[in-house]
Formats: sequence, C-alpha cells, structure tokens
Amino acid sequence: MFHPEAVAVIGASATPSKWGFGILHNLIQGQFPGPIYPINLKEKEILGRKAYPSLAETPGPVDLAVIVVPPEKVIPAVLDCGRKGVAAAVIITAGFGEVGAEEMRRQEELSRVIRQTGMAAIGPNCQGVMSAQSRLFAQFLWLFPPAGKISIVSQSGNVGGSLMGRGMAFGIGFSKFVSSGNEAVTKCHELLEYFGEDPETEVVMAYLEGVPEGRAFFRALKRVTPRKPVLILKGGVTEAGSRACASHTGILAGESDLFASACRQAGAVLVDTLDDLFYSAVTFASQPLPRTNRVGIVTWGGGWGVLAADACVREGLCLPALPAEVIAELNEFLPSRWSHNNPVDLAAGGGPGVLSRTLELMVKSPAFDGVVQLGIGISSFLRFMTQSSFFFGHADRAKVRETLLSMAVESDKKFSEKVMRLSRETGKPILSASDTASTPSEDNVVMQTFRQEGKIIYPTPFHAARCLGHLARYARFRQKIKGEKPGQG
Amino acid sequence: MFHPEAVAVIGASATPSKWGFGILHNLIQGQFPGPIYPINLKEKEILGRKAYPSLAETPGPVDLAVIVVPPEKVIPAVLDCGRKGVAAAVIITAGFGEVGAEEMRRQEELSRVIRQTGMAAIGPNCQGVMSAQSRLFAQFLWLFPPAGKISIVSQSGNVGGSLMGRGMAFGIGFSKFVSSGNEAVTKCHELLEYFGEDPETEVVMAYLEGVPEGRAFFRALKRVTPRKPVLILKGGVTEAGSRACASHTGILAGESDLFASACRQAGAVLVDTLDDLFYSAVTFASQPLPRTNRVGIVTWGGGWGVLAADACVREGLCLPALPAEVIAELNEFLPSRWSHNNPVDLAAGGGPGVLSRTLELMVKSPAFDGVVQLGIGISSFLRFMTQSSFFFGHADRAKVRETLLSMAVESDKKFSEKVMRLSRETGKPILSASDTASTPSEDNVVMQTFRQEGKIIYPTPFHAARCLGHLARYARFRQKIKGEKPGQG
Repeated sequence: MFHPEAVAVIGASATPSKWGFGILHNLIQGQFPGPIYPINLKEKEILGRKAYPSLAETPGPVDLAVIVVPPEKVIPAVLDCGRKGVAAAVIITAGFGEVGAEEMRRQEELSRVIRQTGMAAIGPNCQGVMSAQSRLFAQFLWLFPPAGKISIVSQSGNVGGSLMGRGMAFGIGFSKFVSSGNEAVTKCHELLEYFGEDPETEVVMAYLEGVPEGRAFFRALKRVTPRKPVLILKGGVTEAGSRACASHTGILAGESDLFASACRQAGAVLVDTLDDLFYSAVTFASQPLPRTNRVGIVTWGGGWGVLAADACVREGLCLPALPAEVIAELNEFLPSRWSHNNPVDLAAGGGPGVLSRTLELMVKSPAFDGVVQLGIGISSFLRFMTQSSFFFGHADRAKVRETLLSMAVESDKKFSEKVMRLSRETGKPILSASDTASTPSEDNVVMQTFRQEGKIIYPTPFHAARCLGHLARYARFRQKIKGEKPGQG
Repeated sequence: MFHPEAVAVIGASATPSKWGFGILHNLIQGQFPGPIYPINLKEKEILGRKAYPSLAETPGPVDLAVIVVPPEKVIPAVLDCGRKGVAAAVIITAGFGEVGAEEMRRQEELSRVIRQTGMAAIGPNCQGVMSAQSRLFAQFLWLFPPAGKISIVSQSGNVGGSLMGRGMAFGIGFSKFVSSGNEAVTKCHELLEYFGEDPETEVVMAYLEGVPEGRAFFRALKRVTPRKPVLILKGGVTEAGSRACASHTGILAGESDLFASACRQAGAVLVDTLDDLFYSAVTFASQPLPRTNRVGIVTWGGGWGVLAADACVREGLCLPALPAEVIAELNEFLPSRWSHNNPVDLAAGGGPGVLSRTLELMVKSPAFDGVVQLGIGISSFLRFMTQSSFFFGHADRAKVRETLLSMAVESDKKFSEKVMRLSRETGKPILSASDTASTPSEDNVVMQTFRQEGKIIYPTPFHAARCLGHLARYARFRQKIKGEKPGQG
C-alpha cells in the first residue's frame, strides 16, 4: 500500500475538474519514482503519460490501484485488479454505505469481492493515501507536505487535509496519511497496528468518527501506545455529531464516554480540537518526554506568565517554587524588580543575554523537568516596529535600523540555537510561545531555527501548556507500563 | 484621558532603547493632532519636537501627561501636573506595589498625592493608553490598530499588546486600550463604567488578574452588561497563577470560582483563552445576536461538519432537524448523496452556486436563528493548488489557470457578499470557518470582503461554535433582563 513500485489510476481523466484528473496529477506532481498507468477507455495519453484502455493491458506489474470510477463500476474494477495480481487498492469512489441501505448492500458485496481477491483495500468514499518517504501522493487534495515522523489515519478527507495544510504552513513533515473512508475492508485498527510497526512512523494521529470493531481497536491501541504516542480526536461525541457521522463516512459513532475512557486506559492521548491535535502531534514528534510533571516558566511579560501558570496547573502540571540557589544566582544578574517566583518574570528587562542565562539556570535546575518559555523573536517584532516608524523612515536613520535589525537577528539566532542545545543536553522539553508564531514568514529567524529540528513556536501560553500536559501524562503512562516509579513530582 | 487636546511626555528621551523615547515616538507616529510636549532637562529638541526642561515651561495648557521618569521622581512629576492643571496622567513607571512592601508604601503615597490634585490617573507600572478615534497612541508598544468598536482594559501590557497585534493582523479595529497596571488610583471598575457610557465603545474586553474593589466592580459590571457585552479573561485562577499576579501587577487575584460565578450572574461573557477573548470580541462587534440557540450547519466536507456539530452541542446550542420543506427544496438541486441532515453536508459537490442556494435556504428558514458555514474561499485554495502544479506551469495552460482563478475569485466575491447580505436581511448571525483563515493575505478576496464589515473567517469549526455559543448565551441574558420570553429553542 505505502511502498508500491507501480501505480495504476483506474478512471484517470483528462478533465481538470474531475477527481480522476486530480489524483493522477498529484501522483505525477509528487514525483512518484515508478511507472504510473492512467486507465481510460478513450484517451491515448493523459498529462503526458500513455493511457491504457484497461488494467490488463498495462505493460508491467501493478502494486497499487487507485479506483476513481463511478460506484457501479467499482466491483468490476476490483475484479480486474484481482486478475492482474494487484496487491492493494485505494477506492476513492463515494456512493456506498454512507448513502443508505441499498448502497450499504453494494458496499458489503464490494467487501466480499475484495476479500476473495486477497487485496488490501482502503475506502470506499475516501480522499486517498499519501506516503511521503515513498513520494506516493495518491490523493485528491493537492497537498505535498514534507517527509516527517507523523502518520495520520483520518475517517475524514477534509480533516486530514486541514492537518497536512497546517504541516505545510509550519514546515512540519508527515510520513503517511490514510483517508480511511467507509472502511469496507481495511479498518482503522489495522492501520493503527501498521503504523505501530512502521519504522518511518514515530507519532500517530487519528481522526475517528467511530471504530467498526471496538475490541480489535483497543487491542491494537494497547499494542502501539507503549512504543509510540497515539493522538486521537473523536468526531461524533454528541448525538448531533453522531448523526452527522453516519451520513458522512457511513460509520456510526459509538458511546463516547466509554470510548474516551477506554482510549485513556489504553494509553492514547485524547485531544479536543483540530488545533490540539496538530500542536500535540508536532510536540510529540519533536520534544523529549519529561521525567516528571514539574515545570518552570520563564517569561518576558507578566500577563503571559500568569496565563501560562494557570494553564499549566489546569493541565495537572506542577510549578515548584524556585530553589534558593536559583534565586541567588538570578539575583546576581537580573534587575531587582524580577518576580523571585516561578514563573520567572523578567519584566521586559535585561536584554537577550539575560533571558538566555535565566533559561539555562531553569532548564539545568533539578527542580524542573520541563520549561515553558514565553517571548521569543525580538527581531520580527523589531522589523515590524521599525517598518511602521517615521523615525526609521528618515534616510539618515536607515543605517541605525539595519544595525538594530542585524543585532536582533543575530541574538535571536543565538538564543533559539541555545534553546535547541539546552533541550538536547538535558533531555528536557522546552516549549517556547510567542506572538511571533502568528506570522510565519520566511525571514523569521527563530521560527526557521526551530523548524530545522521539527519544532514550532506556540502561538499562546495555552498551546504550550496544553502540549506539555499531554507530554507529561504520556510520560507517566510509559513509566507505569515499564513498572518504573514516577519521578518525584 | 481619552480625548486630550495637548499631551506632555514627562521623561521623554532621545535614546531609542528608552521607554521615554518609545512613548513620544508613538504619540507622533500615531498622528496625534494636538501639541505634544517632550519634557526633558537636557535636550532642546527630541524627534523634531521642541523639548521643555519642565512642565511649567510648556507654552499652552496640557490635558494629559504621560509620566516615564524613575520611580523616585514620579511624585514630584505628579505635583508638577497638579500645579499646571493637568486633567489626567498615565504613569508608566514601574517599581511600586508590584515589588514589595516598601514600594507599596510609595504607591500609597502616590495615590494620596494624586487624589489631592484631583487628577484622573492610570498606572503606575503600565504600558500606556490608546484612543484610536482621537489618534492618541500614548503607549510603549509600537502598535497602531485601526479604529473600531472594541475597547480593552487589561491589567497586563503584553496581553493587551497581543490583542492589538492580532487586530492589526486581521484588520480588526479598536476604540480604546488601557493598560491599567497597579491601579493605584483609577480602578478597572471605573474604566468599565466609562466604557459602558462611551459612545465609541460597543464591546468591552477585559483581562483581569484581580479586582481591587469587588463590590464596586460587580455593580459596574451589572450596569454595563444590559447594554454592551463585557468579555472577561481572568488570570490568576490557580494558586500558581495568583502568586504570579502579585509579583506582576501587585494585584492579588481573589477567589476564582466565586469571581467567575459572580461575573456570570452579572451578565459578563467569561472566556478561557487569549484566542477565545479575541475571536469573541470580534464576533460581538460584527454579528447580530441570535433570537434563540437553534443553529444550522452547512458544510462542504463531512469531518468539519461532524466536529462543528459536536462543538455546537457542547456550547449548549441546539441543532434542530431539517424541516421537511427545506429537505424538499434542497433535493431539487443537490446531488443525491447530500446528508439530508443538519449539518447539511454538500459532500464537496455542486459548486459555489449550490453552496449559495443552500446557505440562503438555511438562513431564511424559521427553524434556525444562526448558521455556521464551513468551507469558504475556493480561490485561495485554487491559487495554492495551481501554483504547486506542473500542469498549470506549462506555458499553454497559463491562460487556463488565469481563467479558473478569475472565475474562482469572482464566485468567492459573490458568495462572501451574499453571506453579508443574508445576515443583514435576516438579522441572523452567520459564522464562516475555513482553512483559508490560517493564511491571511492581501489577495484573499473572501477575507477582504468580510473585513469590510469588521468580520472574520474563523480558522476552525471549534472557533465558530464557541463564538456562536457566547452570542446565544449573551442574547438569552439580554432577553431575561428585558423580561422577554426566550425564543422557542
């Protein structure tokens, strides 16, 4: 499914508005390295590739078939695949179990036929599959995120698309994406199991509306979570949402509280929103697990520190008081108005050197196993300030502006590299939040430095606290599984 | 305070890194129309303005003084203001009650002196004040949001800055911003009361760490909420957060559950996060209040519809079934696979004309008093698709690309104008969410159209549902206050 050598698109089309065009286009655009065979009765060539009137007539073996023909032609296409010896199929076509009882019978017939051929099959009623390391973009959405460690199984194509789109905006990579659709044959728990074994996958994200085989799902979950974090966003937790599921993927959402508590017991990370899902996945893919839930906060400005402290406590994190030796060391170089408290509030004073020394003391202190750092990226703010300023608009001050900016860029670069280094050296997560995250731009040096290690800057203290909460809970679960005593919290 | 004719900056500086420079700079940059007097012992001129060695020597009357001198010089500066007959002062200087007991005594002395002069005074330990309609930017942060209907009182300068920064990014205007600091004289409840009467303010946002006079605060709140929504984000709701408050603004956060329930009783809208505060304020400033909590959802893609339905129900909104006549009308032009359900899921079919007709039917149906609409802005997605496509990269297809794009831009423009018109005509809120909101850009036609009416596109269904929940709860509060029966829900 994810590492084919040759792909056929059954129902490929030369008409740009059709799905059979988009999928073929994306396979080519994604630079799939093996042969791609468009199957179309009438065309001789589509998008520069020789087209074939039938799968049987393709010149070589085919490992993966993407099926985009109308619903009544899907079973014949699957039979063709069986005769050709195709190992796996992705059935994009909708019009099955999600529509009504009659179409559900068609879907059951389809499952039966696929099982007879022995093929693996995704769908029907799905958006496609993506495997970035294999450069396989067998999907309708024109999204080409970079290769990374996160894999996605989604019972919704557009939720998966939203996640990949964010990945592209923030430079976050994915390994595999499966839009599982109606799951007529391959169920989400089988995909979960697969991702559990997949060496290219380190974090699993799932958007689920319902699990067709509950027991098998929880068994699979329990096998994966001790090794890899599994993040789950559940759709259809209310009656209205559940009704919407049935007409969407044809999968009925089950009892939600039961589902949630079973997931939690099985070690899954339950998230609440799309943002939560995205930011958590990036966090698990880029941050070490904390040994305990003891957190230090370092902030440039008071309000964000207060909000971060609240958010951390609400996430079950613990904010120990500053040890006396940390206070003594900070007293040596901080202006006297600093908070003398955790959060360490620098009160917008002291410059980037001071921030850097403070952060180092906090991260290295045995009192803390994780740090939330607020206010990073002075250079982008300075760029914005000076651009909107009449003072720096004067010709004779252009040089001052450039000097200030290059100093700020240099100090941002040094500081963000130090954040990376401190986290590597101590094995502790450091989560940075700043307004600078709301304006991703190519010249934002801190975001670029973070991006090189797959990290992001969180847009608010709430995002950082939430993600650190997930990390700490999952770390505790892993310790329990291994029979370890928790770090003292 | 907010409409002065002449402003003095006591402690103005010619050194760009100093606060006394930033504040003077921003007053000038903001194009304050009256005289601005820098007060500085040594300089003859700062930033092109004649400087004066003392307030007494300024040539005309001064209404507002911004005080940026060191803490020990604040009281003498206030006394100068008293002699000059200055009506109001903003005391930026820190080093008062937020530091310790001794500095608290200095703050109490300051309050006493100010009261004797009869001045109004904001601070100390604050970031400044802003009054966009008067073009008064007497603040340190170099932020110049457009003029609008929302006013902010914040006990934190950086939280206020985050809010104004977002406003600028989304083109959302503000009327006034006050960083209230330690509230040595003017308390947050007095500002609330003022905003309640201010004809330029239609929505009030507050970030509060603690209220120094609880009873007065709730009395003020009760007077304002029947006329204007007051949105409150509370910092210091946990013990750790509360400790952080004390060393930040010198204000002790009180009992939080009690505070929250009292706020709710007084009709305030309590929000949880910075995002919640920003999006809710924009929503109240730009959307009509719904008559009831009955909501219809229209979605292009299933997953977002499911998540929106869940989020609406969690917000206490009600999703009535589609009336038979709406189903019958939709059957006439929707492809047969549509959901036949609320959410109305168009299953990515039918084109923008169909979306427009569906939305109109839902908004006009008496079954719904508000609509959440998911998936808007095909043109920015198309621009993104075609830019990343080898197909449209071919020279002979550049024309196809341009044709498709201009069609999409045209249809986006028509559709977003229709959303505005439908909401105006029916008096019902319509909240649109789309991935397109995550990439604000100048050529995004839907965002531009929304912006003209002060509206935004929400980045996820959760944001839209949350904001509609706030609207509906506040609408119910208003109905109760007026003794109206609620609309049937």
